[in-house]
Amino acid sequence: MIRVKIGDKILAEINPIKVTIWNEYVDEKENPEVSGIYPQGIHNALAKGLEPYGFHIQTATLEQPEHGLTEKVLKQTDVLIWWGHVAHEKVKDEIVERVYNRVLQGMGLIVLHSGHYSKLFKRLMGTTCNLKWRESSEKQRFWVVSPSHPITQGLGEYFELEPEETYGEYFDIPAPDELVFVSWFEGGEVFRSGCVFYRSLGKIFYFQPGHETYPTYYNKDILHVIANAVKWAASPHGTAPTFGHFKALEP
Amino acid sequence: MIRVKIGDKILAEINPIKVTIWNEYVDEKENPEVSGIYPQGIHNALAKGLEPYGFHIQTATLEQPEHGLTEKVLKQTDVLIWWGHVAHEKVKDEIVERVYNRVLQGMGLIVLHSGHYSKLFKRLMGTTCNLKWRESSEKQRFWVVSPSHPITQGLGEYFELEPEETYGEYFDIPAPDELVFVSWFEGGEVFRSGCVFYRSLGKIFYFQPGHETYPTYYNKDILHVIANAVKWAASPHGTAPTFGHFKALEP
Amino acid sequence: MIRVKIGDKILAEINPIKVTIWNEYVDEKENPEVSGIYPQGIHNALAKGLEPYGFHIQTATLEQPEHGLTEKVLKQTDVLIWWGHVAHEKVKDEIVERVYNRVLQGMGLIVLHSGHYSKLFKRLMGTTCNLKWRESSEKQRFWVVSPSHPITQGLGEYFELEPEETYGEYFDIPAPDELVFVSWFEGGEVFRSGCVFYRSLGKIFYFQPGHETYPTYYNKDILHVIANAVKWAASPHGTAPTFGHFKALEP
Amino acid sequence: MIRVKIGDKILAEINPIKVTIWNEYVDEKENPEVSGIYPQGIHNALAKGLEPYGFHIQTATLEQPEHGLTEKVLKQTDVLIWWGHVAHEKVKDEIVERVYNRVLQGMGLIVLHSGHYSKLFKRLMGTTCNLKWRESSEKQRFWVVSPSHPITQGLGEYFELEPEETYGEYFDIPAPDELVFVSWFEGGEVFRSGCVFYRSLGKIFYFQPGHETYPTYYNKDILHVIANAVKWAASPHGTAPTFGHFKALEP
Repeated sequence: MIRVKIGDKILAEINPIKVTIWNEYVDEKENPEVSGIYPQGIHNALAKGLEPYGFHIQTATLEQPEHGLTEKVLKQTDVLIWWGHVAHEKVKDEIVERVYNRVLQGMGLIVLHSGHYSKLFKRLMGTTCNLKWRESSEKQRFWVVSPSHPITQGLGEYFELEPEETYGEYFDIPAPDELVFVSWFEGGEVFRSGCVFYRSLGKIFYFQPGHETYPTYYNKDILHVIANAVKWAASPHGTAPTFGHFKALEP
Repeated sequence: MIRVKIGDKILAEINPIKVTIWNEYVDEKENPEVSGIYPQGIHNALAKGLEPYGFHIQTATLEQPEHGLTEKVLKQTDVLIWWGHVAHEKVKDEIVERVYNRVLQGMGLIVLHSGHYSKLFKRLMGTTCNLKWRESSEKQRFWVVSPSHPITQGLGEYFELEPEETYGEYFDIPAPDELVFVSWFEGGEVFRSGCVFYRSLGKIFYFQPGHETYPTYYNKDILHVIANAVKWAASPHGTAPTFGHFKALEP
Repeated sequence: MIRVKIGDKILAEINPIKVTIWNEYVDEKENPEVSGIYPQGIHNALAKGLEPYGFHIQTATLEQPEHGLTEKVLKQTDVLIWWGHVAHEKVKDEIVERVYNRVLQGMGLIVLHSGHYSKLFKRLMGTTCNLKWRESSEKQRFWVVSPSHPITQGLGEYFELEPEETYGEYFDIPAPDELVFVSWFEGGEVFRSGCVFYRSLGKIFYFQPGHETYPTYYNKDILHVIANAVKWAASPHGTAPTFGHFKALEP
Repeated sequence: MIRVKIGDKILAEINPIKVTIWNEYVDEKENPEVSGIYPQGIHNALAKGLEPYGFHIQTATLEQPEHGLTEKVLKQTDVLIWWGHVAHEKVKDEIVERVYNRVLQGMGLIVLHSGHYSKLFKRLMGTTCNLKWRESSEKQRFWVVSPSHPITQGLGEYFELEPEETYGEYFDIPAPDELVFVSWFEGGEVFRSGCVFYRSLGKIFYFQPGHETYPTYYNKDILHVIANAVKWAASPHGTAPTFGHFKALEP
């Protein structure tokens, strides 16, 4: 922890944000098309891309004991980034429950791309989280619709990505607490591609780009959005509420 | 179905709204204090209280086969009212899943009082749905904070209920899509006591009053709110979306 | 008013919804391209298109005394539809204030297309209501993102319109209370094209299509959405609140 | 500006947040009851109370040229705090417009107590912003209903204030983008006492306590909330959008 003072006045206390990047890490080992793009796995590409932002970064994968998400790891995580695709069902329910509880207690969560269909995200949303998709390498244009939001800092009015998998509405989620990006796809779809949700003490950001066969996570704008989202998701929250039987307060 | 015409012009098609009232119906059989108030069960008290509103009403209880919530019953239900308290865990997961899916497909749902802690409501919310409570027979005052909402039709700026169990914040739910009532309790608590949620095609209303040891469901204002909520929850919705792989549209 | 009974039980009371369609009615008299499409004015085209829905419809225009929006007319209006374009500044402030107050008191309001830049809409939103635009006769595709909403009843998952003026984000409005449609435009834009706002007792729907040089208001889907919006905006609301100094209630 | 580095890596850039506290400063000069509590004015009491948080603070009052809110002052303001009561009508329209535009361009705004009825707040909300009130020195209890929000950092589940003026619902505002506090008042009212609004690039927080005849702005919890709100309102935003005629993008 770094404390910045002028004389005795504390201007700021700086703890590098502790980020854990979770990746199921399956496609990269089984599919040459994917390993060609992400030879060390999506998690390591993200870790490298986020390095310049000064976070304290660690990674975790499905194959590790407890999927790398032990109580200790989660306790030391300010923001968890989640990427999954073909192995959602292999994530153990007890680990999902552990991560879920940690989010409700205030850990930030960034769910990427096909993570929309993870047990974790569906558990937090309460809906099917289903959507339309098509792999046709179309151009995608992200339009900012909440320019007051910290996640949009340093971006233009819009930014582009090509090629990317097309995701289309209806995306079966609760209405986001804040809708940050709406995307246009060449083939005729739109998608709510940047969605903020508050759940208990936790801040959640769903960000849609990142199909495993495209080099999305090397793109500077995409990395910048994820870094902004990390900072936002790590911002302070309040005290854990108490529940259950409650005596009358002094009126 | 009743069709109202002037000449050939159809002014309205009236189908009495089909309401199913589900009650776990346990306290009323085991606790004399409760059976004294609701000798036929909360479900029958509600059915009688809602009768003047012209709905087509049936009831269902935990003890019935499939808890009375067969595919056929749900298919013929426009709005389901849910009351549960001590037996949440006895509701079978497969029935919860069935009702959950029917809500997402457009059936209205009104969750009453301790139903906040039912498997169904927690599944739909994605949060713990926990809260504070105290049985001290306090006065409760409901303040309307969304006077544009149909659920508030015919009410004053506020209405009162006494005695009622006290529920207090923090109520661990996602921020409601519309907050309709905020309640004041004599002992010092506030509670978001009327909450609207949209999930997929379904409209959901959580309404907090109705502890089993108080005659809440004979109160005219409470019945009026529930009747308003039934009408609102039965209002039209759109077409069921399709999901999954999707060909490019003609640009 | 038509009362539907079975015996003594009143099933429904039907008052045809009273709709007033306001049009500045300038382009149609000055621009042959527009008068070719709407020879009787946009207001009369809309009135004719909405006729099958059984509303009681009247029209009003800028050139009439008090712009046709007298106290009496507004008092007898359940839902006001507003179309304006080149003459926003010619609408008198006192009439804007009168309509504004009537909306806050519960009259429904549907603002169409370039009405986004009317004094009335800007007054209600509190923002600039500015946007991007381009007249290039592109195809527009409306995607439903709130399938639970009554305004989407009877529509598909999406519907199309061609040609239409392109409107693009950022649309400078408060986040809608409900976002119903997001549109895709051929040229690369997206737009929040169906937006619900609640203000005091009033229900407001902004619906983007309707450039004066295209035959948009003859399109069946567009008319269907407007008719749905009329029904929704006319749905019940609560009691007018009181304000100001307030004695303590009986605790 | 202070830059924190480890080697060449920039960990943080720290600019003390520039806060301007605006106070109409009338009651304190005319009413001995008020000057007894705030002898240097509410603005100076707030400035002193916020000093430990490390902001760069200046004040401005109604009586100054341009009400102390020159273009230059506003340009150098990250967050504006606004307190007004008896002199709302004396604030010149052109200054209101200037501040309004600056908020839309990204300056944070914290509106305190009777500032709810300022021209500025009403202009931003688009509603009457009216409410109920009573000066009866009641106890007020603030309940946190958004524990994920940075504004609640360091608070308990609730905090109390006594005495305070009672404000009661219905508070005629658009539904807040985030509802942070709901207050209970001894006399039977509830109030949405901490409300977040996003408008264009600006972040706005309405915070209800602060009647001029009570020593509210010496209270540690109240000052802590305001300091939290300053930090939150100064958090990054995106790029200013462009509006108007817009050429087609490269598809």
